[in-house]
Amino acid sequence: MPSEFDFIKAIQRKAAAQSAADLVLGIGDDAAIWREQSGRESLITVDLLVEDVDFKLEYAPPRWLGYKALAVSLSDIAAMGAAPKFSLLTLSIPRWIADCGLRIADWEQFFEGYFELAAKHRVALIGGDISSSPDKLAIDSIVIGQCQAGKAVRRDGAKVGDAIYVTGSIGASAAGLKLLLGGERVEENVRSSAFRRLKPQPPEGGTTNAIESAIRAHLKPEPRVKFGRQLGELGLANSMIDVSDGLAQDLAHICEASNVGAVIEFDAVPIAEEVSLVTENADEAFEFAVSGGEDFELLFTADRSNETELMALADDCQLRLTRIGEVLERSLPVAVLTRRNGETTPLLVRGYDHFGI
Amino acid sequence: MPSEFDFIKAIQRKAAAQSAADLVLGIGDDAAIWREQSGRESLITVDLLVEDVDFKLEYAPPRWLGYKALAVSLSDIAAMGAAPKFSLLTLSIPRWIADCGLRIADWEQFFEGYFELAAKHRVALIGGDISSSPDKLAIDSIVIGQCQAGKAVRRDGAKVGDAIYVTGSIGASAAGLKLLLGGERVEENVRSSAFRRLKPQPPEGGTTNAIESAIRAHLKPEPRVKFGRQLGELGLANSMIDVSDGLAQDLAHICEASNVGAVIEFDAVPIAEEVSLVTENADEAFEFAVSGGEDFELLFTADRSNETELMALADDCQLRLTRIGEVLERSLPVAVLTRRNGETTPLLVRGYDHFGI
Repeated sequence: MPSEFDFIKAIQRKAAAQSAADLVLGIGDDAAIWREQSGRESLITVDLLVEDVDFKLEYAPPRWLGYKALAVSLSDIAAMGAAPKFSLLTLSIPRWIADCGLRIADWEQFFEGYFELAAKHRVALIGGDISSSPDKLAIDSIVIGQCQAGKAVRRDGAKVGDAIYVTGSIGASAAGLKLLLGGERVEENVRSSAFRRLKPQPPEGGTTNAIESAIRAHLKPEPRVKFGRQLGELGLANSMIDVSDGLAQDLAHICEASNVGAVIEFDAVPIAEEVSLVTENADEAFEFAVSGGEDFELLFTADRSNETELMALADDCQLRLTRIGEVLERSLPVAVLTRRNGETTPLLVRGYDHFGI
Repeated sequence: MPSEFDFIKAIQRKAAAQSAADLVLGIGDDAAIWREQSGRESLITVDLLVEDVDFKLEYAPPRWLGYKALAVSLSDIAAMGAAPKFSLLTLSIPRWIADCGLRIADWEQFFEGYFELAAKHRVALIGGDISSSPDKLAIDSIVIGQCQAGKAVRRDGAKVGDAIYVTGSIGASAAGLKLLLGGERVEENVRSSAFRRLKPQPPEGGTTNAIESAIRAHLKPEPRVKFGRQLGELGLANSMIDVSDGLAQDLAHICEASNVGAVIEFDAVPIAEEVSLVTENADEAFEFAVSGGEDFELLFTADRSNETELMALADDCQLRLTRIGEVLERSLPVAVLTRRNGETTPLLVRGYDHFGI
């Protein structure tokens, strides 16, 4: 196994090719440094991805895993209405990867995926740490963002009467996970047969394109970086969160932080087409989609008078944007309701539960 | 097992008791936020501690583990000459801890240790993440610091002719690790019999106090926060690193970054008394001490004319400070030399190798 130092040096060479405004010192010292500026705020988020809890190597191609590791944290910064600037990455690498002959190719792919997304959003990798792990791979992804002072969009700003919006569609990622756990694979898995435990299987049944797209939604999500940043800069939203625990759960987080309630329209929620791979029943599809999780879409509340501007912004970002409900006074023990044919019922809040742990 | 949300809330309540200048938003949203200021720089470091690679639960009392998790990252910020401000903590918690009845007490102790050190240096915990882990405990410790723009002390600033200094003494931590791996335990291990796999053993042989002090040096190191910060503020050092990989290795890092060489005086290196528990031979003690690692002392180079001021600063911080050598032109493939009785020999650079992985 190349030493920790060799490995860090290889990443450092990749990282050195990046540059970023206000970066004083990147990888290679006891700490990284960036310049501060009055009237600006720094933001930080960290996301832990653990093998066999958050992903399985048998279905996650290294390139997509690297991409997703950064994507989940970029999504958090986008959900604050801020711009991502710097990232750090911590890896605990199990010995079995270190021992297998394909290790270097795996990690090259992992970092190709990571740097592909970093380059897209001009994020510079400025630090991290590596340890060997006794058993499983764990990835800790840290992203630092910036915004104008006071412009960050928090969870606690939802106002009664706000309209509720969500970008893109909901449920494809959960459908993809279900398919993967059921043994479905896509060509990308086959091509990148680098991780030793990878057992590729050709897709069967359903529409291949829909299967591929569901699996991709789960394994290589696209964070809404540009839309989130501009929403913050323009001050168009009162509260925001990214959909990681499931739309129902995440809307409940907003309600709890803002001390409000919410109602969502059953027929308005943009359920991803891919959910039809899992169920054709409309009720089941709705419940599956709103409790699925890892959609990494942006869920936010805004004054209804901003809607034209919001739709224009979404259009500019080539994103679908849907108004799905309204913020209410908090009056019930259950914060989130569903309205269907004029009747409201409490929405069962079920978070994303990884693999049932 | 209480849900991830319950656990985060319990930590959040502890963290909410803290306050910090320039903190806008702590734990509880997609990201934490702090205000920037012109003329200032932010610094960030991250350190990963993995069970059975970096520590063993059978000898690490939870309280000390929490303390050390923060200490290692505070040490990095001190080694940049900066002041620590905020921290984040990521935990992957194995199911066996979650399953055992003592879990809550363990984690209360862990966070007592963590917050004890945080309070001492006014560091506010502002974020983190938690996942269950399939097997081993892993801790990712992140600390953000600040300094005046341009004041950070880097590895690459060593100048030919600089004197080389180290705080405290070297080798006690490595001696402590060796004793622990040999089965020695101290009373603190016995008292905090919280982690299920803890197998306390009374200390035998040697001086109990020395054994305790060696084990404490390894399990509950004291980062040189105040000294490091003031060294940076006063601009007294040209380069600095903390001793985590071993003095020889860390001095080599400075030499490599600064493109210089170095000579250390065999008789000047402040070898900790505790090293005598491991060997009585002077040559062996020297080699053990300089290649031991995890001392978390500060190793720096400075203009000799600053020595009076440096010694006064160390005195103010109740720290021993020793001049151990001198920065040379880089002329040999081996950067670091040892001088003994006027004769110089290359110093074998051996890093800290965890448990031989």
